[in-house]
Amino acid sequence: MKVVWEEIEMYSEEYLNVMDFTEKVMSLVIKSKVKEGVVNIFNPHVTCAICVNEDDPDLWQDLLEAYQKIAPVKGNYHHNAKYRGMSREQNAHAHILNTLIGSAVNLPIRQGKLTLGTWQSVLFVELDGGKHRRILVQIMGEE
Amino acid sequence: MKVVWEEIEMYSEEYLNVMDFTEKVMSLVIKSKVKEGVVNIFNPHVTCAICVNEDDPDLWQDLLEAYQKIAPVKGNYHHNAKYRGMSREQNAHAHILNTLIGSAVNLPIRQGKLTLGTWQSVLFVELDGGKHRRILVQIMGEE
Amino acid sequence: MKVVWEEIEMYSEEYLNVMDFTEKVMSLVIKSKVKEGVVNIFNPHVTCAICVNEDDPDLWQDLLEAYQKIAPVKGNYHHNAKYRGMSREQNAHAHILNTLIGSAVNLPIRQGKLTLGTWQSVLFVELDGGKHRRILVQIMGEE
Repeated sequence: MKVVWEEIEMYSEEYLNVMDFTEKVMSLVIKSKVKEGVVNIFNPHVTCAICVNEDDPDLWQDLLEAYQKIAPVKGNYHHNAKYRGMSREQNAHAHILNTLIGSAVNLPIRQGKLTLGTWQSVLFVELDGGKHRRILVQIMGEE
Repeated sequence: MKVVWEEIEMYSEEYLNVMDFTEKVMSLVIKSKVKEGVVNIFNPHVTCAICVNEDDPDLWQDLLEAYQKIAPVKGNYHHNAKYRGMSREQNAHAHILNTLIGSAVNLPIRQGKLTLGTWQSVLFVELDGGKHRRILVQIMGEE
Repeated sequence: MKVVWEEIEMYSEEYLNVMDFTEKVMSLVIKSKVKEGVVNIFNPHVTCAICVNEDDPDLWQDLLEAYQKIAPVKGNYHHNAKYRGMSREQNAHAHILNTLIGSAVNLPIRQGKLTLGTWQSVLFVELDGGKHRRILVQIMGEE
């Protein structure tokens, strides 16, 4: 089994944002020459998340509004209270949503390509923006 | 490492539904002859989801009611407004819930069998029913 | 590909609890001698969950409070009504949250170590405590 490591850098100036990075993942899978296997897209951060859904900015606004209903930015959080005065640590909402949306996605690779469905894109969900992010891409399988 | 591909077809007439498809997954794992490895049950759709939980229709009603509290079918969504008049596209609730419940589950295979716990079943969660669905089953490991 | 199986036992007297078990996972990865691969931390139970986030007890209280907003312990559930009088089965909230937080995490192993980010810990989320839990750890990859 071959194991290939890559990284994808993401940056959002917007505090809450959804960004499509499917093409970057696709090109890394092709570059790896892995033909049958899996790509583990692993987010080593705790205040952003990764998921798979449609490439539609209207929908992305719906996602962010729904996430805000679950865990509003301006909520009353113990984590934020402990770090009162530290503007970069007022982010309990983002931690909570990371645990619900998830840290990683495992996408199958078949005949050298991602098996994404017609409406599927790989989405980066920034919940605590203005930070430089580094997404780990682990490609495993047979050549 | 052996990689075997299978598909499972799902169809729910009900708009919101939970269906247990554990036995189909189990029989595909046995058929694959993979003894030690993993089965990646990957949903290529964006308005239904897959999870692992109990085979209890009363609980399934609780799941759907809880999901409806998070993202009601009759909510006020940008995605739905854009596609106003297209009844098949009034499904932002389903997209939102897909990102929270998840697109895929990775189940370990040990001695040729799924390692599911006593109360675990593999569940298909339809959130935008009346559509034919095709679940991808990727079985990887050693014979 | 080498496949190694381990188990981690967890027990929380508290009914709702978050516990960090990163060090146990790390030591099992080192013991396995797998250098490049993945560890699938699989929860065979349906009323607790696993996620990756920060080692901060204040944040953990925020997590549990947010989860309670989604699915309160004292909610009105079909599952609980069916098992009325059985105190150990009044746990629909825990089933619901298991489907949202997730049953398993897949962590990459690189050069014999977990690739966790600076603020990432592996967290066990007990949602129906007072039960003995057994977490399955499947380590796969190349030596």
